[in-house]
Amino acid sequence: MSVPATTVVPPLTDELDIVIPTIRNLDFLEQWRSFFQPYHLIIVQDGDPTKTIRVPDGFDYELYNRNDINRILGPKASCISFKDSACRCFGFLVSKKKYIFTIDDDCFVAKDPSGQEINALAQHIHNLLSPATPFFFNTLYDPYREGADFVRGYPFSLREGVTTAISHGLWLNIPDYDAPTQLVKPLERNSRYVDAVLTIPKGTLFPMCGMNLGFHRELIGPAMYFGLMGDGQPIGRYDDMWAGWCAKVICDHLGLGVKTGLPYIWHSKASNPFVNLKKEYKGIYWQEEIIPFFQGVALPKECTTPQKCYIELSKLVKEKLGPIDPYFEKLGDAMVTWIDAWNELNPSADATNAAPVKKTEAAPKKK
Amino acid sequence: MSVPATTVVPPLTDELDIVIPTIRNLDFLEQWRSFFQPYHLIIVQDGDPTKTIRVPDGFDYELYNRNDINRILGPKASCISFKDSACRCFGFLVSKKKYIFTIDDDCFVAKDPSGQEINALAQHIHNLLSPATPFFFNTLYDPYREGADFVRGYPFSLREGVTTAISHGLWLNIPDYDAPTQLVKPLERNSRYVDAVLTIPKGTLFPMCGMNLGFHRELIGPAMYFGLMGDGQPIGRYDDMWAGWCAKVICDHLGLGVKTGLPYIWHSKASNPFVNLKKEYKGIYWQEEIIPFFQGVALPKECTTPQKCYIELSKLVKEKLGPIDPYFEKLGDAMVTWIDAWNELNPSADATNAAPVKKTEAAPKKK
Repeated sequence: MSVPATTVVPPLTDELDIVIPTIRNLDFLEQWRSFFQPYHLIIVQDGDPTKTIRVPDGFDYELYNRNDINRILGPKASCISFKDSACRCFGFLVSKKKYIFTIDDDCFVAKDPSGQEINALAQHIHNLLSPATPFFFNTLYDPYREGADFVRGYPFSLREGVTTAISHGLWLNIPDYDAPTQLVKPLERNSRYVDAVLTIPKGTLFPMCGMNLGFHRELIGPAMYFGLMGDGQPIGRYDDMWAGWCAKVICDHLGLGVKTGLPYIWHSKASNPFVNLKKEYKGIYWQEEIIPFFQGVALPKECTTPQKCYIELSKLVKEKLGPIDPYFEKLGDAMVTWIDAWNELNPSADATNAAPVKKTEAAPKKK
Repeated sequence: MSVPATTVVPPLTDELDIVIPTIRNLDFLEQWRSFFQPYHLIIVQDGDPTKTIRVPDGFDYELYNRNDINRILGPKASCISFKDSACRCFGFLVSKKKYIFTIDDDCFVAKDPSGQEINALAQHIHNLLSPATPFFFNTLYDPYREGADFVRGYPFSLREGVTTAISHGLWLNIPDYDAPTQLVKPLERNSRYVDAVLTIPKGTLFPMCGMNLGFHRELIGPAMYFGLMGDGQPIGRYDDMWAGWCAKVICDHLGLGVKTGLPYIWHSKASNPFVNLKKEYKGIYWQEEIIPFFQGVALPKECTTPQKCYIELSKLVKEKLGPIDPYFEKLGDAMVTWIDAWNELNPSADATNAAPVKKTEAAPKKK
């Protein structure tokens, strides 16, 4: 009775940016309003820069189109893909925040089995702020969750966990299938709500989807490069996969955790499987060599920052994947350009792993 | 209308034994009757062999007490623990079947969120008969499940999976906590039903609990030795952990899969945490060295059967863990004795990995 009314303050509002790549009006934000409005949005407009993207009123955002990207990065803009959602990583570059949540504009608010709307962003924040357990598997999943703990036989020395760098969320309705699976199972929908968050063990790779993804920008941002995809490139729809392979081996090397599971978003529409097949087909056979490459990557001890790790990885990519196709030579170069751009826009992040100094360059269109 | 009435035949009734270690009357079987009655039970009576264990009418079973174990194994009986549920592995030894399901007598039928009773055995059989995916993580969990598949970016060359050797089930109500966690959280109950089965990746260890466990006896049975625990030993409650560490590194070496998740059973009563602490305390500090040892185990190529792997592992245990405590010298010897006993009772299993010949020795008390 004497307890004062309190307002629930959304967490990390000053420390997290929401990055959205898009080619259309962002009406999908209406459904997310109550969850996203307290946060700053970075919108990366793909395709025709003369087109106007409408953003619902009341959101705090900056928007970059291709002209902005070219202006801000100059020749280094070559590392940012065009006509592919890979362009989203430009938003990671220009953010000044500690954390990023990125979401596709065809993703809506899902409901949990009790019918309650899921605040995907809040769950990502929870995942990122609680430790991960990459060195040993806990059979009751996230041991830090209310009502759970480490089970019998879990080493006590590992119960502090490690810092979580990546929180990978999932999708109800349209599952994230490749073109062949889409073609074979056009009607399959994901309706299974698995009430778990788990750490992907050290040494294990996973297919990271960029649709619904949170990460610790200061710790792993430089590895979150979405590669060369789309316009002028031989491949598409492997942008997030590339970032996932690179980021996972670097997290493993740096002792950072990667989680997957909750939160779910509602993925509204399947992309065209025929178009997807054209984008994917080289990736589908290249990945048979790329994945064993990443499984075998060993980074030297001297690589103590994500930048150093990423530069080292770029050399290995050119050396080991270059023989598959000249594309990987170009990609290796673009990885270096990306780090150059990162260091330019985040000057303090180069030498140390500490909080990057607030960037003063790159005046975005603030609307 | 013209479709004849069909009886649903429970799967693998001739190929699976249910192994139950116990010291009391098996009234708990009443609740399991509809699920277990079509199967053969192997009951391993622990403690006083003069005590009579009552088994509800209608079950097909054989029962072994300590006198039977001594009679059947002679001097090799020294490898079978007394006054500890580790004695259950004697049941694995004398079984003639391809698969084992083992369950504790304080485990009851759980209900899924829809209120339906869970046939734990049927789920284990499903897990064991469908492939596992240890080489790459699938973010939608079991890709072979109805309504699920491999997600975008999962290598096609890995989609056949590998044979599943172990199916590790979980527990609602009383979670499987160690004594310190029991003491700290005496009232914690597991009420979260996570609707997933997943493969524990290659190279990752997990705490295997023997309470609700299925496995492929022909492929991994020789590694399912529950060690020296209880009476006359310095340690207890690490029997299943030991089996899990050994079996996982051997599964990884042989290219077999290990799954965890569904099915849940209802674990009815927490054991005494003070008694547990006494049993566990050496294990709690030993495991800090044992787990890094298992994480580093590399078996030679020539080890192509679980027996050969296990013998090799016994040598490494004596060499690397012996310096911790003389107990591990004794345990290493017991591991060899166990394999001798296995080969004696399963003569064809020694040379090949093929189906073992039906054993003709070891006349059990058939009731």
